[in-house]
Amino acid sequence: MSTSDRIWTAALVVIGDEILSGRTHDKNIAQIASWLQVQGIRLKEVRVVSDDMDAIVAAVNALRHQYDYLFTTGGIGPTHDDITVDAVAQALGVPVVIHPEARAILEEYYRDRPGGLTDARLRMARVPQGADLIPNRMSGAPGIKHGNVHLMAGVPTITAQMLDALTGTLEGGAPLLSETVGGWIKESEVADLLREVEKAHADCQIGSYPFFREGQTGANFVIRSTDADALASCVDTLCEGLGEMGFDFTPGGI
Amino acid sequence: MSTSDRIWTAALVVIGDEILSGRTHDKNIAQIASWLQVQGIRLKEVRVVSDDMDAIVAAVNALRHQYDYLFTTGGIGPTHDDITVDAVAQALGVPVVIHPEARAILEEYYRDRPGGLTDARLRMARVPQGADLIPNRMSGAPGIKHGNVHLMAGVPTITAQMLDALTGTLEGGAPLLSETVGGWIKESEVADLLREVEKAHADCQIGSYPFFREGQTGANFVIRSTDADALASCVDTLCEGLGEMGFDFTPGGI
Repeated sequence: MSTSDRIWTAALVVIGDEILSGRTHDKNIAQIASWLQVQGIRLKEVRVVSDDMDAIVAAVNALRHQYDYLFTTGGIGPTHDDITVDAVAQALGVPVVIHPEARAILEEYYRDRPGGLTDARLRMARVPQGADLIPNRMSGAPGIKHGNVHLMAGVPTITAQMLDALTGTLEGGAPLLSETVGGWIKESEVADLLREVEKAHADCQIGSYPFFREGQTGANFVIRSTDADALASCVDTLCEGLGEMGFDFTPGGI
Repeated sequence: MSTSDRIWTAALVVIGDEILSGRTHDKNIAQIASWLQVQGIRLKEVRVVSDDMDAIVAAVNALRHQYDYLFTTGGIGPTHDDITVDAVAQALGVPVVIHPEARAILEEYYRDRPGGLTDARLRMARVPQGADLIPNRMSGAPGIKHGNVHLMAGVPTITAQMLDALTGTLEGGAPLLSETVGGWIKESEVADLLREVEKAHADCQIGSYPFFREGQTGANFVIRSTDADALASCVDTLCEGLGEMGFDFTPGGI
């Protein structure tokens, strides 16, 4: 494998009882996954764990060596249930310190706001020793980067700001390209075709994603490859096959 | 701890490249989490892994001993990328067999449908040896239960049918009750209050979930307990405290 073929990988730890209780629908998995795709980095695994020291430490330590990058979301706010910084510091074996630049950012942000920089708010300047900051234009409180570990907010709009600040700063490989073809097709009717087309195009993977909508069965077929020509050829072969079988299909998916 | 205080736990493995690519927003985590709450079972961990044999086997084996129940979603359909049954069988150390009842269900379902019961469709009757079926009224193809491991569909509406069939069949404990209080309140302004109220109510946990909406900052505070009286008392104390600090708040959350 040449350097240019190197596949860069990432994992995500979503920290939050609110996701595990079913109360909040997570939006950060899809948001971070899509962003990583554009950076040429593949999200390979996600773990959702509760607001529990041991659970966070275990997940961080299991994943940070296994993948090129690790992201966490949630638990970096000012309240008592925000323990991500402490847990990641413990996982990394470093103490928690106040980051002077983070303190300065928060001092500036809260200068003219009611209450000023309280002890609770100053918690948001705490980082595992040796960390850098990830700017966040929205609320002042920065994200945190320590080696390959990136601590992001739980609120998706704030995480979006932090991802924006990180764009282009992480080394990645060739982005995984994808094309979708969809139709009101039962996937069981085209299972053989999908298997054969994938087998004939070694550099491509085909995923089949069935759905029920408006009382009808359909499926989207997603073809993925890092090679644009291979991808186009695979899509053509699949569309030809679907056409020969008499199916209507829609490039781009339905 | 008396038997009635026993806490029952579950984990979920979401199988699907479509979630890890960011293409599909997962709905099964919240759906299964909410359903488990009602059964008196706590969802403690979720792992999202790719459509990869080794990744599924590793996740299933890491979690099935650690928690009372394990659920998987995705990868039990008729196409080549549906490898969950094979992976779970490998994790359990049993062969894959055709389940006679599943075959009968599929024969009946496809009797009058175009194409009939093809080899691809018969794949959906494959189970790890020793498994029972979880009925699915929607599409015929059943879910699968083997010991404490439950294989559910990837399509959320089908998983909903399977959960319905499982309702009341799993032993659980006292359901975790929760109340929410929300307001256009910056959580950093009430961080001390939240910590003190939680400390004063040992049987309750308070989670703080900030959000940005319509250009404004707010937060919902979720109080959880298995004890209804303790919960009510904790909510009262929190509301009293918020009132004393001059905050408007909404029972039920905003």
